[in-house]
Amino acid sequence: MTDILEKSQARQRLRSLSEALDSGALKQVARILNGGLSPSDIAHLLESSPPRQRALLWNLVDKDLEGEVLQYLSDDIRGYFLSQLNAQELADIIEDFESDDLADLLQQLPDTVIQEVLETMDEQDRQRVEEVLSYPEDTAGGLMNTDTITVRPDISIDVVLRYLRRHRTLPPMTDSLIVVSRRDDFIGMLPITKMLVSNPASTVREVMDTDIEPIPVSLSDTKVATLFERYDLISAPVVNEEGRLLGRITIDDVVDVIREDADHSLMSMAGLDEDEDTFAPVWKTTRRRAVWLGINLITALTASAVIGLFEDTIAKVVALAVLMPIVASMGGIAGSQTLTLVIRGMAVGQISGANVGWLLNREFLSGILNGLLWAAVVAGAAMLWFQDVMIGAIIAAALVINLVAAALVGTVLPLFLKSRNIDPALAGSVILTTVTDVVGFMAFLGLATIFYA
Amino acid sequence: MTDILEKSQARQRLRSLSEALDSGALKQVARILNGGLSPSDIAHLLESSPPRQRALLWNLVDKDLEGEVLQYLSDDIRGYFLSQLNAQELADIIEDFESDDLADLLQQLPDTVIQEVLETMDEQDRQRVEEVLSYPEDTAGGLMNTDTITVRPDISIDVVLRYLRRHRTLPPMTDSLIVVSRRDDFIGMLPITKMLVSNPASTVREVMDTDIEPIPVSLSDTKVATLFERYDLISAPVVNEEGRLLGRITIDDVVDVIREDADHSLMSMAGLDEDEDTFAPVWKTTRRRAVWLGINLITALTASAVIGLFEDTIAKVVALAVLMPIVASMGGIAGSQTLTLVIRGMAVGQISGANVGWLLNREFLSGILNGLLWAAVVAGAAMLWFQDVMIGAIIAAALVINLVAAALVGTVLPLFLKSRNIDPALAGSVILTTVTDVVGFMAFLGLATIFYA
Repeated sequence: MTDILEKSQARQRLRSLSEALDSGALKQVARILNGGLSPSDIAHLLESSPPRQRALLWNLVDKDLEGEVLQYLSDDIRGYFLSQLNAQELADIIEDFESDDLADLLQQLPDTVIQEVLETMDEQDRQRVEEVLSYPEDTAGGLMNTDTITVRPDISIDVVLRYLRRHRTLPPMTDSLIVVSRRDDFIGMLPITKMLVSNPASTVREVMDTDIEPIPVSLSDTKVATLFERYDLISAPVVNEEGRLLGRITIDDVVDVIREDADHSLMSMAGLDEDEDTFAPVWKTTRRRAVWLGINLITALTASAVIGLFEDTIAKVVALAVLMPIVASMGGIAGSQTLTLVIRGMAVGQISGANVGWLLNREFLSGILNGLLWAAVVAGAAMLWFQDVMIGAIIAAALVINLVAAALVGTVLPLFLKSRNIDPALAGSVILTTVTDVVGFMAFLGLATIFYA
Repeated sequence: MTDILEKSQARQRLRSLSEALDSGALKQVARILNGGLSPSDIAHLLESSPPRQRALLWNLVDKDLEGEVLQYLSDDIRGYFLSQLNAQELADIIEDFESDDLADLLQQLPDTVIQEVLETMDEQDRQRVEEVLSYPEDTAGGLMNTDTITVRPDISIDVVLRYLRRHRTLPPMTDSLIVVSRRDDFIGMLPITKMLVSNPASTVREVMDTDIEPIPVSLSDTKVATLFERYDLISAPVVNEEGRLLGRITIDDVVDVIREDADHSLMSMAGLDEDEDTFAPVWKTTRRRAVWLGINLITALTASAVIGLFEDTIAKVVALAVLMPIVASMGGIAGSQTLTLVIRGMAVGQISGANVGWLLNREFLSGILNGLLWAAVVAGAAMLWFQDVMIGAIIAAALVINLVAAALVGTVLPLFLKSRNIDPALAGSVILTTVTDVVGFMAFLGLATIFYA
């Protein structure tokens, strides 16, 4: 019973699907796909399939489901399917898209195709899409929908209810109506639940909430997500510089931003894209990884060059070669802890100029303390191993130096990178490793050269 | 204008707050805190403050705001503040808590304190809380609220609307009413927006949605989050094994789960807790980091032990010491790319027994291709550097071996760890590094020993 849903829905259908696929019973596959699964389930299934199976499945999806399935796919995979459609097929697919989803999708296409698609649309739809397209994808403008239901402040709740009843459906995620002036200036929000418990004779002005600050159209999507999380919003109004209502943002799109932002740090620290297709084909995977390995080879060669400076010392005392990776690796581990903590703290907006001094001081002290602790342990081990007090003292000093360097660089580096508009999650770990390798080998082999010379 | 909100709200208030704090104008601080800021803003401010400032601020927060602020704090910091309250103070604070938030909070307290607090509550509230407390925190049961509004299927929409109007307010995030039988069995959902556009004379049965599968109370919170993301839910009903309605889960709590799950992978891979307090004091930070450094020291010592086996070879050919970190580090980088990809794929439910074979094959091929590419580059560099063809050939072979090993271990290890109920994000990177270090040094120095012997 633990996993009713999992067993009954996903797993069982997946199993029968994959059995049907294996046996080549394509009609049966198509029936399961288009019969029982929601568009988001189909998208998840496609994302969980290796390339050949994925192409097969996509061909079996009903034409009128394709558009919705595309909306749930990650950029990488969606881009691939889109590139195989012509302008007319695209136009058919996107008929029912909301303006923000459509803009997202169009942004992945070449400019000429965008123009072709826009020309197939009617005037009103085209204007709505062009409006959203005019804002960068990663801002409130790129995230918003234009399908708002607005009301004036001076009418009664009863009139609003009758006005709503004239609609066939309300836009998804409508938890509030937006109150605007005659000039479309934002005035307040009218939560539907509040309306339902109010006296129908009261006016909108009496019932509405005015303590909600509308979202400026140019606010970054990450900041939009912070506002939604902090104030538990379901939908929020978006305004231009003059305070005129442009559209609204809904929680479903914000959840995607939260997921992507969180994934971004994790994936970037390993040199991967947050939108990386888990089942990308070999050649694509190899090409992307090659770039990252090449960048990291520079770090490794730099470390080797540093070691090369001390060849003579190593030739004299081979034990140094045995022990030197310890200093570099402990520095890397300590540094990446600090780096990860600071990157996360920056992402959630906890770290600013006001408290970075305290943080640097804490990391410095903690680096010294852990340096001393582990220096003692490693020194003891080294002395016992090589029966040499000198080598213990040298590795102890090098460890303390490297752990302190790691703490300081781990704190300052991400802040510096961000101020230079370089992604700390992507560049941070490579640069940090270079520093801890260079400092580690330099301190250990340098000290050894002095004392064994 | 880019950052209206940021400048006007957070930053400006933060700046005046920190100026007031610095100048010791505590009355002014208290006025800003309790006047203009929302409980979630105050919580964020506390999380962004070093310990001394944090304690000072907490003391200035109005008594009747404390409860709400606590709800927005992360476990680590909340636990600290809670530990300083006695049972009566606790009871005062938690009066207005929702049952799921209260259960979360109580779970952080010692059992004796929980009992004391429960005794101060009235019968009905106590039962509600004890019910939620009886489910593990990381399941649907631990996540749900019991404040549902339920209706019967056979009444008319008009009656429902009149029934709602008798409420003073509706529970937050009420986008749907839950339709249940006389025995409280779940039947369907009645979206409020759908009700508003329906004929008031129709019955609930005619208007309600029945294609929604209720969430089993024991489903894991991660799976609950997947359902919310996949079906764009705002609230969802929770049922027991017999299908009886127990409560409902709302998107605001699910967003927290999504954030925590995503943070978990990032933080665990660096040996940090996802709930880690960015501004934890020195001694706490040092202690936690020490454990992780100690574990990683075992990896480093293992690597040293492997190198130690080949001391004689290194003494003969010192160039080996210079080049050996390249082999180990490239293996580590390649492995951590695969590991991160697989951990992310597992977290979003893309990877299963059905496709892991394909994945392993792709990683193997990609490992060989990148191995050959970078082996050629590194071999060329090594030959030029040391004017020795043999050393180039040896490092090339070792690199290919280590990149392939990294690809295989990076794919299989997280799946194996998960099957053993060990957290792959936490244990994965340490074990992987051990493997790539050992294989790297062993392959490179081992081959060198054979050919230079």
